[in-house]
Amino acid sequence: MSEGILVLNGPNLNLLGVRESSIYGNRSLADINRELEDMANKAGVRIEFYQSNHEGELIDKVQQAPEQFEVIIINAGALSHYSIALHDALRAIALPVIEVHLSNIYSREEFRHHSLISPVARGGIFGFGPLSYRLAFLAAWEIIKEKKGNK
Amino acid sequence: MSEGILVLNGPNLNLLGVRESSIYGNRSLADINRELEDMANKAGVRIEFYQSNHEGELIDKVQQAPEQFEVIIINAGALSHYSIALHDALRAIALPVIEVHLSNIYSREEFRHHSLISPVARGGIFGFGPLSYRLAFLAAWEIIKEKKGNK
Amino acid sequence: MSEGILVLNGPNLNLLGVRESSIYGNRSLADINRELEDMANKAGVRIEFYQSNHEGELIDKVQQAPEQFEVIIINAGALSHYSIALHDALRAIALPVIEVHLSNIYSREEFRHHSLISPVARGGIFGFGPLSYRLAFLAAWEIIKEKKGNK
Amino acid sequence: MSEGILVLNGPNLNLLGVRESSIYGNRSLADINRELEDMANKAGVRIEFYQSNHEGELIDKVQQAPEQFEVIIINAGALSHYSIALHDALRAIALPVIEVHLSNIYSREEFRHHSLISPVARGGIFGFGPLSYRLAFLAAWEIIKEKKGNK
Amino acid sequence: MSEGILVLNGPNLNLLGVRESSIYGNRSLADINRELEDMANKAGVRIEFYQSNHEGELIDKVQQAPEQFEVIIINAGALSHYSIALHDALRAIALPVIEVHLSNIYSREEFRHHSLISPVARGGIFGFGPLSYRLAFLAAWEIIKEKKGNK
Amino acid sequence: MSEGILVLNGPNLNLLGVRESSIYGNRSLADINRELEDMANKAGVRIEFYQSNHEGELIDKVQQAPEQFEVIIINAGALSHYSIALHDALRAIALPVIEVHLSNIYSREEFRHHSLISPVARGGIFGFGPLSYRLAFLAAWEIIKEKKGNK
Amino acid sequence: MSEGILVLNGPNLNLLGVRESSIYGNRSLADINRELEDMANKAGVRIEFYQSNHEGELIDKVQQAPEQFEVIIINAGALSHYSIALHDALRAIALPVIEVHLSNIYSREEFRHHSLISPVARGGIFGFGPLSYRLAFLAAWEIIKEKKGNK
Amino acid sequence: MSEGILVLNGPNLNLLGVRESSIYGNRSLADINRELEDMANKAGVRIEFYQSNHEGELIDKVQQAPEQFEVIIINAGALSHYSIALHDALRAIALPVIEVHLSNIYSREEFRHHSLISPVARGGIFGFGPLSYRLAFLAAWEIIKEKKGNK
Amino acid sequence: MSEGILVLNGPNLNLLGVRESSIYGNRSLADINRELEDMANKAGVRIEFYQSNHEGELIDKVQQAPEQFEVIIINAGALSHYSIALHDALRAIALPVIEVHLSNIYSREEFRHHSLISPVARGGIFGFGPLSYRLAFLAAWEIIKEKKGNK
Amino acid sequence: MSEGILVLNGPNLNLLGVRESSIYGNRSLADINRELEDMANKAGVRIEFYQSNHEGELIDKVQQAPEQFEVIIINAGALSHYSIALHDALRAIALPVIEVHLSNIYSREEFRHHSLISPVARGGIFGFGPLSYRLAFLAAWEIIKEKKGNK
Amino acid sequence: MSEGILVLNGPNLNLLGVRESSIYGNRSLADINRELEDMANKAGVRIEFYQSNHEGELIDKVQQAPEQFEVIIINAGALSHYSIALHDALRAIALPVIEVHLSNIYSREEFRHHSLISPVARGGIFGFGPLSYRLAFLAAWEIIKEKKGNK
Amino acid sequence: MSEGILVLNGPNLNLLGVRESSIYGNRSLADINRELEDMANKAGVRIEFYQSNHEGELIDKVQQAPEQFEVIIINAGALSHYSIALHDALRAIALPVIEVHLSNIYSREEFRHHSLISPVARGGIFGFGPLSYRLAFLAAWEIIKEKKGNK
Repeated sequence: MSEGILVLNGPNLNLLGVRESSIYGNRSLADINRELEDMANKAGVRIEFYQSNHEGELIDKVQQAPEQFEVIIINAGALSHYSIALHDALRAIALPVIEVHLSNIYSREEFRHHSLISPVARGGIFGFGPLSYRLAFLAAWEIIKEKKGNK
Repeated sequence: MSEGILVLNGPNLNLLGVRESSIYGNRSLADINRELEDMANKAGVRIEFYQSNHEGELIDKVQQAPEQFEVIIINAGALSHYSIALHDALRAIALPVIEVHLSNIYSREEFRHHSLISPVARGGIFGFGPLSYRLAFLAAWEIIKEKKGNK
Repeated sequence: MSEGILVLNGPNLNLLGVRESSIYGNRSLADINRELEDMANKAGVRIEFYQSNHEGELIDKVQQAPEQFEVIIINAGALSHYSIALHDALRAIALPVIEVHLSNIYSREEFRHHSLISPVARGGIFGFGPLSYRLAFLAAWEIIKEKKGNK
Repeated sequence: MSEGILVLNGPNLNLLGVRESSIYGNRSLADINRELEDMANKAGVRIEFYQSNHEGELIDKVQQAPEQFEVIIINAGALSHYSIALHDALRAIALPVIEVHLSNIYSREEFRHHSLISPVARGGIFGFGPLSYRLAFLAAWEIIKEKKGNK
Repeated sequence: MSEGILVLNGPNLNLLGVRESSIYGNRSLADINRELEDMANKAGVRIEFYQSNHEGELIDKVQQAPEQFEVIIINAGALSHYSIALHDALRAIALPVIEVHLSNIYSREEFRHHSLISPVARGGIFGFGPLSYRLAFLAAWEIIKEKKGNK
Repeated sequence: MSEGILVLNGPNLNLLGVRESSIYGNRSLADINRELEDMANKAGVRIEFYQSNHEGELIDKVQQAPEQFEVIIINAGALSHYSIALHDALRAIALPVIEVHLSNIYSREEFRHHSLISPVARGGIFGFGPLSYRLAFLAAWEIIKEKKGNK
Repeated sequence: MSEGILVLNGPNLNLLGVRESSIYGNRSLADINRELEDMANKAGVRIEFYQSNHEGELIDKVQQAPEQFEVIIINAGALSHYSIALHDALRAIALPVIEVHLSNIYSREEFRHHSLISPVARGGIFGFGPLSYRLAFLAAWEIIKEKKGNK
Repeated sequence: MSEGILVLNGPNLNLLGVRESSIYGNRSLADINRELEDMANKAGVRIEFYQSNHEGELIDKVQQAPEQFEVIIINAGALSHYSIALHDALRAIALPVIEVHLSNIYSREEFRHHSLISPVARGGIFGFGPLSYRLAFLAAWEIIKEKKGNK
Repeated sequence: MSEGILVLNGPNLNLLGVRESSIYGNRSLADINRELEDMANKAGVRIEFYQSNHEGELIDKVQQAPEQFEVIIINAGALSHYSIALHDALRAIALPVIEVHLSNIYSREEFRHHSLISPVARGGIFGFGPLSYRLAFLAAWEIIKEKKGNK
Repeated sequence: MSEGILVLNGPNLNLLGVRESSIYGNRSLADINRELEDMANKAGVRIEFYQSNHEGELIDKVQQAPEQFEVIIINAGALSHYSIALHDALRAIALPVIEVHLSNIYSREEFRHHSLISPVARGGIFGFGPLSYRLAFLAAWEIIKEKKGNK
Repeated sequence: MSEGILVLNGPNLNLLGVRESSIYGNRSLADINRELEDMANKAGVRIEFYQSNHEGELIDKVQQAPEQFEVIIINAGALSHYSIALHDALRAIALPVIEVHLSNIYSREEFRHHSLISPVARGGIFGFGPLSYRLAFLAAWEIIKEKKGNK
Repeated sequence: MSEGILVLNGPNLNLLGVRESSIYGNRSLADINRELEDMANKAGVRIEFYQSNHEGELIDKVQQAPEQFEVIIINAGALSHYSIALHDALRAIALPVIEVHLSNIYSREEFRHHSLISPVARGGIFGFGPLSYRLAFLAAWEIIKEKKGNK
C-alpha cells in the first residue's frame, strides 16, 4: 500500500553545507533530512529521501512513487528550469507534488525565474532555506490528513 | 515598539469565499484571518489584518509597518504583477516580507507568472489555498523567534 | 433586487469635452450620460453613472455591482491597458460586461492595442465617439430583455 | 449615385448556424441578413449583402463600393488577422468602415487578438453574436444621417 | 451519403516533378495521385483529388467535404503557414484531417516551421516525399475502418 | 519559344491614380503600362501586363510564365508581405524576377518593411513612383541582352 | 488666474532621507521642498508641493493644475514606468511638464529604463539627486519667463 | 553486418497505457512493440526495442546503432524539445531517422511545438497514437527496400 | 551653385573586384565609376566620387554636399545597418538620396535585412551588381531634370 | 593640473541652427557655446569645446580628458544609441559625465529611446533645447564646487 | 592532496575522428588525449581524462574534482547550451574552469551561440580543432604555476 | 612577400594598465606587446602591432594586411559587438583571424555576449587577461607552421 512522503532532491543539492555556504547556508542535506525525519516520526508518517545528479534516475524514482508514497516533495535544483522530461513524469503520476527551493529563485539570474515543476505542482515554497523543506513537510502532512479524512 | 505580524491582502481578496469559490474555495478572508489569529494567540504573537482594493492604501500601510511590526505577510493579488510602487515600498522598509498566493499562479494565465513582490520578499508560498497563509504564519514566527534568539 | 445598468468611467474621462476636444469631440461626459439617461427612461431601465480616477474606487464599485445591477458598461480608459486588478474584479462578479472606447484604440499608440477588459467582457464597441456608449446601452438592454425572457 | 450600406462577410461565415453552433449560435448568415434587411427597410436605407471565401473577390467588391454605397460593414473573418491586401483596399476607398465580429476575438487564440481591419475602420463591435451586426447597422445609419445633415 | 477520402493539394503542388525536382523529386502530382488511386481501388475506398492555387477554392472545397467524404488528406503547401481562413474551415467541419508534407518543413526556412493546419489535424506526416501521401492514405483508411467498426 | 517580359501587378494596384493620389501620384496603371510599352517597342522586346487582386490568379500566371517570358517584373503590392505561396511560385520557376515598389516601403508601417518577394528576386527597385517601373524595365532588358550575349 | 509651479511627487518619495539613504541620500523631501521654496521666493514665483502614494490623487491634482499653475515639475516615482492613466492626464492638460528623477533610472533595473512620463514631458532631468529638482526649477522658471516675454 | 530497425523510446514512454490513458490511449509500449514485431516478422526484417528515461543511455544506444541497424525509429518524448545532445548524436551517425509522436504535439503546450529531432530526421509522423509507430515501420521498410534496390 | 551628383561609397567597397569576386563580381569600383562618368558626360551632368572606410569622413562629406550637389547616390556598405549618425546626416540635408546595394541584402544574413539609409532615401536599388549604380544614375538624372522642369 | 569642464558634441551637432531648425531651433552650436562660455567666465571656471563627426576622435578626446578637466558634458548625438566604444571610454576614465540632449529623445523614433551614455553618466538632461546645455553647466559647476568643498 | 588537471568531455565527443570528420577533423579523442598527456609529462603535471554521454556522470565527476585536481578543462559538447545543472556544479566548486570547443560555435546554428559554461569559466578557447585543447592545457599550466608562485 | 603576424587592438585598449586596472589588470598594452615580441623573436616570426580608437583606421589596416601578413590577431574591443564594417573587412580578406578578449565577455553585460568578429574568425580566446594574447600567438604560429608544411 502506498503511504507517506517521498523527498526528492536534484543535481548539486548533495553539496549543501559543503560548498557556497554563504548562499545556501551551512546545514547539509543530511541535516535537513534529519529534521524532516524527526517531524515525520512525531507525526507518525513514513518518509524517504533520494538525491541524484542524474535526470534519468529522478524520473525513474518519480515513476515508481505512486506504488509507495502519497505525496512528493521535490527540489529539482537546476533541472526545474529545463527538464520537460521530469515535468512529464510528475504530471503523469497521480500524486500531489510540493515544489521546494532553498533560495529565492525569483531574485537570481533570469534563467531561474521560470520553473517547469511549478505548473505540475499543487503548490510551492521558496526562499526560506531549510525552513522551506519543513513548511513543505507540513503541507504534505495536511494533504495526507485531508485525504484520510475524505475516506 | 514594533512587534508582531502585519497581514496585508490586496485587491479582490475581500471576495474570497463569496465569488469564484470553485477556484478559490469557500472559506472567506475572515475565516482565514480567524485561523491565523488563533495561531497567533497560541504563539503569543501580535497579529493585524488589512485588506484594500487601493494600491495607494496598501503602500501607506507598508510604509507605516516598520514602526509597528516585525514581519509582513502579503498577498498582493493582481497588484503582484504590475505594481512597481508596491515593490518599491516593500524594498524601502527593512522588514522581512513573506509572499502568499492562494492559487498556483504559475499554472494560470501568462501574465500571472511574473511577480514584482517575489524579488523583494524573503520567500514565498503559493498554491495551497488557505493553508498558504498558515504556512506563511509559521515562516513569520520562525523569523521572529530567530531575531529574538539573536539578541 | 439587482436591476438596471451601471455605467463606469475610468481615469481622465471626466475631462471629456473640456480637453483634447480635437480628439475626443466636444461633448462632455455629462452630455453623454444625459443621452443614456434619456434612452434608459424611454426603455424603462434603471441606470446609474460613476466616474473615478482611482483604480481602487472603480474596483470597489464593480464588487458592489451584483447587488444592484444587471449589466455593467465600462470605459476603463487607460486602466484598460494595465489594471489586472480591475480585470480580476470584473471576472469575479457574475454580471455581463460591455466594454466601450470613444476612440479607435487600435489606430493609436502600440500600448493601447491590448485591453485587459476585453477578455472578461461579453463584447465591446470602440471608435464611434459618444455613439459607442449609445450602442453599448442598446446591447445592455438586449441582454436584460433576453434575461427577462429566459425567466 | 452611391447610397446605402454594403455588408461584407469573409471566409467561413457562410457556415454560420450550420457548423460550430455551440460557438457561433444557431442563427444562419441568412437569418442575420434578414434582420438587417428589416432594419434597413424600416429606416428606408438601401442594403446589400456579399459573402465570399476568396480574398480577391472581397477586394474587388471593396474597390467597387464607393460607386454604390455610403458605408461598409465588414466581418472579414480570419482574413482580419493577415490580409494586408484587404486592409489596403479598405484604406484606399473613401467610405467609412465598421468592423464586426460575432465572437470576442480577444478571449480566443493569440493570433486572433490582432486585426488588420481595425486601424482602417471608423470603429468596431465584437462579441455580441448576431447583435453585433445590428449594432453595426445602427452605427452605419447614424453615419449616413450625419452625412446627410452636413449637406 | 458521405464516403471515402478527399485529397487536397494547395498552391504550387501542381508543379511537382516539373520544377525544383532536386528538392521535391521527379514524380508529378498525377503520379502520386495514381498511386493513391491504386491503393484506394484495392481497399475499395472512394477517393477524389483536388488541387488549386487559390485559397478561396480550397476553402470552398473543404466546406463541401462533409457532404461527400469521411476523411481529408491535405497538403496545403505554403498556405499551411499563414492561412487562418483555411485553418478555420478545417476546424469548422467535423471530418478528421491528415496533414501531409513532401519535404521536412522543420529543416527548411524558419517561416516554414509553423503550420496552422497542424493544430486542427488529427495527425500528420512530413519529409518522406511521395511516400508521405501513401502513409497518409493508410492512416485515413484506418480511421475509416475504425469508424465503421464503431457503428 | 519564351521571349520578352511579363509585368505583374498585385492587389489594389488597379486603383493607381484613382485613389490615394497624394501618396501614389496621379498616373494610372494604364499610364505606366503605356510608358513601358513604348520602351519595349523601342527596344524591340515583347511585353505583357497582368493585374489581379487574387493571389491564386497571380500564382497561376507566374507558373505559366516560363513558357512565354524571359523575365518577370513584379509589384506584388500587399501580398509582398505575407504570401509565402507567391514566394514559392516565383522560386519554383527559373526566370529572373525584378521586384518593384512605387513607394518607399521602408519608411511606412512596420509590417511593410519585410518583403517575401525580395529573397527570391534578382534585385529590386523601390520608392521612385512610376520611374521604379521604368528602371525595372531597363534592368530586365539588360538581363535579356546579357542572356542573348551568352548564347 | 493660473500662475507659478506645481511640484508633484509620487509613491514612496515621502520616504526620502528616511529609508534607503545610501541610495537616495539623507535629505528628506521636506528639505528638497524648502530649497525649492527659497529659489521660488527669490524669483518671485508661486510654488506648491504635493506628494501622494495614490495614483488617483495624483491624476486629480494634475487635472486641476491648469486652473492654478503654469508649469508642472513631476517625479512620478514607480508610477513613471506603468501608469498610462497619469500619462493620459499629463497629456490632456496644456501645461508644460518637467520630469525629474533623483537616481539615474537608466543604470538600474531593466523595468525602470522606460518612462511613460517622458513622451508627454517638455524635457527631463535625472541622476543628480536633490540637484535634479533645483535644475528642474530653473527650467520651469525659464519657461515661465519665456511665456511672459511672448505676451 | 548492420541490418534492420532500432526502435528507441525516450522518457516516460514506459508509462504508456498505465498513466494518462485518456491522452495516450490504453495500449502499453509492450503492446505497440508486439504489433511492430509482427509487422517485422512478416516483412522479414530484424527489429529491436529500447526504452530509457536517461538521455545518456539513449545517446549511447544511438552511437552504437550504425554497427547493427539500417534505420532508427525514435520517439524521444520530452527530450525532443531540449536535448541538443541527442540531436547531435543522431546527426553524427549516418542512419536515416524517423521521428514518431503519439499525440499531436502542435496542439499542446507551446514548449512542445518545437522538436530538435525533426531537423535531423528524414521525416516524421505525429498524432495517430500507436498507428504513428506502424506508419513509421512502413516508412522504415520502404527506406530499407530502396537501399537494397540501389545496390 | 550646387549642381550634379555625388556618388558616395562606404567601408570595404574599395575592395570591389579585388576580393570576394565570386560574390561581388570582378569589376572594380574604378570600373563602375568610369561607367557612371561616361553616362554623366553624355547627359552633361557633373558627377563626383568619394569612398571611405571612415563613418566620420562620410558624414563630413554628406554635410558639405548641399553646397555642391543636387542628388546623392550612396552605397553605405555595412554602415547601412547600424550608423544612425549617417542616417541623421542624410536626413538633415535637403538633397534627395538614392540608396544602392550591389547584392540582394534581403537574401543574406539577417543583420543585413534592415537598412537605416532606406527611411531617409527617396528610393533605392538593390541586387543588380554594377547595374544597380547605373540605374541609380538614371534615377538621379530624372530627379535633376524634374527639378529643372519645375523652375 | 586638471581643472574645468569639457563640452563634447557628437555627429551632426555642427549643423545646429543651420539645418532642421524647425526641430532643433535656430541657435547654432557657436551660439550655445558662447552662452556657456559666458556662464563659465562668471563662475570663474575653465571651459573647452569640441565637436566631431568621428567616433574615434571623440574617444581620443575622452581618453585625454582626465589630464585636463574635472567634468565632461556630452551630447553624443546619434552615437548615444550604438557606440559601445564611446560608452567604454567614458566608463574607463574617472571623471563625472553629464549627458545632454536638445530634443526629447523619448518622444522620437524607437531607436532613440535607448542611450548607451546614460548608464555611465552621473545624470542627464533632455528636451529643453539650448537650455539643456545651460542646466548641464550648472550641474557641472555644482559637482566641481562639491569636490572643492570636500578637499 | 589535489593536484593536476582534469579533462572532461561531454556527449558525442567519443565519436571524434570516427564520424563527421569533415567537420571535426580525423583525429580521435584518444589522439587528443595522448597529445595532452605528452605535454603533461613534459611539464610534470598530473592529468586525467573522462568522457561521458550522461549529464549526471559529468556532474558527479565535477563535484569530486576539488579533492583531486587544481584545474578543470571542459568541452561539454551540446550540454554547454542547456545544462544549467552542469553550470551549477562548476560554479559550486572552487576550481578554475577552462572551456574548450573544437569548432567555432559562433558560426554554427543559432542555438549553439550561447554557452552556459562560459559565465562560470575563467576563460575559453574555441575553433582551433585539437589545438584548442593544447592551448587550454597551456592556460591550465599557467594557472597552476601562478598558484604555486603565490604560495 | 606577406609574412608574419599583425596584432590589432581596437578602441580603449591603449588604456590597459592605466585605467580600470582592477578589471583589466595592471599590465599595459606595451607590456603585452613586448611579451609577444619576445615570443615572436624566439620563433623567428615577424610581428607588428597597431592600436586605434577609429573604426575606419582599423578597417584600412585590415584591408592592407594580406599584402604583408599571414595571420591577424585581433582584439576589437567594443567594436566587436557592433561593427559590421570591421566584420566585412575581415571576411573580405583571405587571412586567418584569431579573436582575443582579455576579460570573459560572456560574464559581463548582455550587449557584450555577441561578437561580430567570431563568425569570421578561425577561432578565439577569451578571459585569460594578457595570457589570452600569448595563447593567440601560439595559435597563430601553429597556423603559419602548418601553412609552411603544406607547401
